[in-house]
Amino acid sequence: MAKQPQHAISPTRAENYPEWYQQVVKAADLAEPSDVRGCMVIKPWGFAIWENIQRRLDAMFKATGHENAYFPLFIPMSFLEKEAQHVEGFAKECAVVTHHRLEPDGKGGLQPAPDAKLEEPLIVRPTSETIIGATFARWVQSYRDLPILINQWANVVRWELRTRMFLRTTEFLWQEGHTVHATEAEAQEETRRMLDVYAEFAEGAMAMPVIRGEKSAGERFPGAVATYSIEAMMQDHKALQAGTSHFLGQNFAKAQEIKFSAESGELEYAWTTSWGVSTRLVGGLIMSHSDDDGLVLPPKLAPAHVVILPIYRDVDERAKVLPYCESLKQELAAQMYDNEPIRVRIDDRDLRGGEKKWQWVKRGVPLRVEIGPRDVAGDKVMVGRRDVSGKGQPLPRTEFVATAEATLTAIQEALYAAAKAAREAASVRIDALKEFEAFFTPKNEERPELHGGFAHCHFVDSPEMDAKLKALKATIRCVPLDAPEEPGKCIFTGRPSTKRGLFAKAY
Amino acid sequence: MAKQPQHAISPTRAENYPEWYQQVVKAADLAEPSDVRGCMVIKPWGFAIWENIQRRLDAMFKATGHENAYFPLFIPMSFLEKEAQHVEGFAKECAVVTHHRLEPDGKGGLQPAPDAKLEEPLIVRPTSETIIGATFARWVQSYRDLPILINQWANVVRWELRTRMFLRTTEFLWQEGHTVHATEAEAQEETRRMLDVYAEFAEGAMAMPVIRGEKSAGERFPGAVATYSIEAMMQDHKALQAGTSHFLGQNFAKAQEIKFSAESGELEYAWTTSWGVSTRLVGGLIMSHSDDDGLVLPPKLAPAHVVILPIYRDVDERAKVLPYCESLKQELAAQMYDNEPIRVRIDDRDLRGGEKKWQWVKRGVPLRVEIGPRDVAGDKVMVGRRDVSGKGQPLPRTEFVATAEATLTAIQEALYAAAKAAREAASVRIDALKEFEAFFTPKNEERPELHGGFAHCHFVDSPEMDAKLKALKATIRCVPLDAPEEPGKCIFTGRPSTKRGLFAKAY
Repeated sequence: MAKQPQHAISPTRAENYPEWYQQVVKAADLAEPSDVRGCMVIKPWGFAIWENIQRRLDAMFKATGHENAYFPLFIPMSFLEKEAQHVEGFAKECAVVTHHRLEPDGKGGLQPAPDAKLEEPLIVRPTSETIIGATFARWVQSYRDLPILINQWANVVRWELRTRMFLRTTEFLWQEGHTVHATEAEAQEETRRMLDVYAEFAEGAMAMPVIRGEKSAGERFPGAVATYSIEAMMQDHKALQAGTSHFLGQNFAKAQEIKFSAESGELEYAWTTSWGVSTRLVGGLIMSHSDDDGLVLPPKLAPAHVVILPIYRDVDERAKVLPYCESLKQELAAQMYDNEPIRVRIDDRDLRGGEKKWQWVKRGVPLRVEIGPRDVAGDKVMVGRRDVSGKGQPLPRTEFVATAEATLTAIQEALYAAAKAAREAASVRIDALKEFEAFFTPKNEERPELHGGFAHCHFVDSPEMDAKLKALKATIRCVPLDAPEEPGKCIFTGRPSTKRGLFAKAY
Repeated sequence: MAKQPQHAISPTRAENYPEWYQQVVKAADLAEPSDVRGCMVIKPWGFAIWENIQRRLDAMFKATGHENAYFPLFIPMSFLEKEAQHVEGFAKECAVVTHHRLEPDGKGGLQPAPDAKLEEPLIVRPTSETIIGATFARWVQSYRDLPILINQWANVVRWELRTRMFLRTTEFLWQEGHTVHATEAEAQEETRRMLDVYAEFAEGAMAMPVIRGEKSAGERFPGAVATYSIEAMMQDHKALQAGTSHFLGQNFAKAQEIKFSAESGELEYAWTTSWGVSTRLVGGLIMSHSDDDGLVLPPKLAPAHVVILPIYRDVDERAKVLPYCESLKQELAAQMYDNEPIRVRIDDRDLRGGEKKWQWVKRGVPLRVEIGPRDVAGDKVMVGRRDVSGKGQPLPRTEFVATAEATLTAIQEALYAAAKAAREAASVRIDALKEFEAFFTPKNEERPELHGGFAHCHFVDSPEMDAKLKALKATIRCVPLDAPEEPGKCIFTGRPSTKRGLFAKAY
């Protein structure tokens, strides 16, 4: 057997993909478990990625006419009871506030004060349709008040038994859009517009190709008429639902009395939508591009585009190398990439050169530049591209600076192309149940970390299908919006079908 | 008696200052009460002001070396027990999560599921020293790990009995800085640096003059060694504490075991600080500048600098006026104010002209521009400055565009100058208790809304002082940092004192 190459992350993806993920999160300093069960601490490097995600998405929301607002963290318990399906979906897993004061327990500790018990318990928001809808009912009187296009950046809590950093945590950060419209057509248009915004962001900024589709009835948001999602393939061939957009019809409007007087003078129920993405996107980013040396960041979302690592042995060398690094930093920062100045850091910490370099490899910075006394003398720099393995390449400084923007653009494109190629290679059309079963049955062959892939199959929702999927641990992700109409037969039941759905194992 | 002028806000400040405040919040569409006791809904116009506050402060924090991170919303109850003074200060007023699931109550409603009771209750963070400190204890090993300079933008909850929008709400939005240092001197320097950042922001961006000072022992943050604050005078002469910065000494480091090996090799407790400002700043902004016609916004924080109001009677006039407005908007938006493009909105809603104009007056936009067919014909615009009363002034369009930046700069400066002059006019040095009592005793004269002002007096902390202040409903705000050393006598006890403190009634 050939000698295995050494990698910065142990285990590798092939050895243990779930554990590799946790180790990348740790090695890249993205997040860590907290002292509160199921909640994570998002560390500065991880939070800076989220800030970049927020900043770009926020601009896209505003460009499509939305305004930010803020609604209460707490939801009165009775609000959850109003929409029947919604309560089914969310009552199971929420944090319940029952008291508003602590008092000494007489044993040196504290306890909730019995006389400070709330008359009505409060729920920490798992999502805000109910509390925002109650507000909208006050805001909406006439058709002139519509549409209402609101977004909220917030934390939400869903009590989760099994958590995994970024992918599923009890508390997470997200944005939730909530809109109200006078007509069904406008609300549907909004639902699809925001799905498109999410897809454009995922592909353009995250370099993560996605499939837009509509969820089947069983996978809809509780209370929605239609749920749309973007689905991305991770490197282990599992699907990640990366964003959802819900057409709520008049369901919430009726539950919450969101009514308006139409131009005709009639009093009508409004049509509402909601849509959201969360810190889960960071998990998708990690699993789309990272390798066995750690995180790989698409330049558009990288907190730093370039890290400069000065190398010297003594104060004399330092006096030559550091000013050179500083002037290089300024030259780079005067260049634009993606409509912003190139983001450059110098890492002059007192650490061994190899250790320092590997920290930045593991953190996924697109370009590393090492500069020692000989480089200064020769006016050249040693440049490492994170998406290309190997030791890096010596470049004349002027050439490096002149091509920095183009290189970052090339990295962004290369990551997208690689992710798309990987998805295409693991996507199949399947027309027979046997083949479907084989596709989703672990093979323990040379790449045991892989879980089938994306299977496009004819189907009709049925208990038979649900049972088969459960047995295989596969799921129906969506019916892709670009799926062509074509006659076919459901692979589970043989019933006639007109479109293929997308099946995959999923996070 | 002369006829009173009409005002957009009723009551006026002189008639009922607290109610005037609530009416300004409402008329400017800043916020409204929610369905959850003590929590508000921050509406888009109010939230846009907060976003501008956030964006500027965030840049100042980053420029002083801080990074953002995110820590859990929940704090295990036992964490609050660790720092004795801290628990005293915060256990009284917090939301307590005791269950993690709801279930049907058998009567058609819901109830917290008895079998989903948490072993240890969780507190919704009232502030995060304890949970962040526990994290820092893991991050800090060696002096090389220091300083740690972290900021968090978050929501916090303090159960309040009497709430007032922005000024005191059960849930509010804020930022909390948390830092760890190797030496006492560095931690003290950080505490003062962030106080200066707050003061610079308040005066430079909010046009709100502030006094920097140190809190007396009784007013310190629970667990702090020293608390510093910035104090602003509102138009009713009450003080508003607008930001605080705490030197925590080693108190929290000891409670939470934040230890590091020093260069000497010794294991030492670290020194920590924390500092914060909140959505309360919006309340301060309102009460610093607004008048009896509603909100007055300092241009640097205004969501829109200029609002253009097209005026027309029919489609023909509309076809002339609207394109003119659009091109004016683009010309203005191509100008820079305060390093950003001038923010311009056109309000073409189908509303009566007077109603529309007054909406923007009440919302505090610095510049209003009314444009009708005759203005288009004469290439001129009617410009209203929010900080100057009256009907506005006709200006040639080119002149208006050419002077827009200078006008916004002038408004910003005028608001600061007016607020500072008002504060100076209501600030006194008092050396006799009788005079002090008279100063803080309501007089029911021609301006009954005024509550004394800022009194600079010699003092020594004592029960006598506390009793007197309580009787007068006055408070000691701080000892101003620029108070000169001077011999004096405490006005309450006659004891010798070396510096004057600042006394005022307060929010």
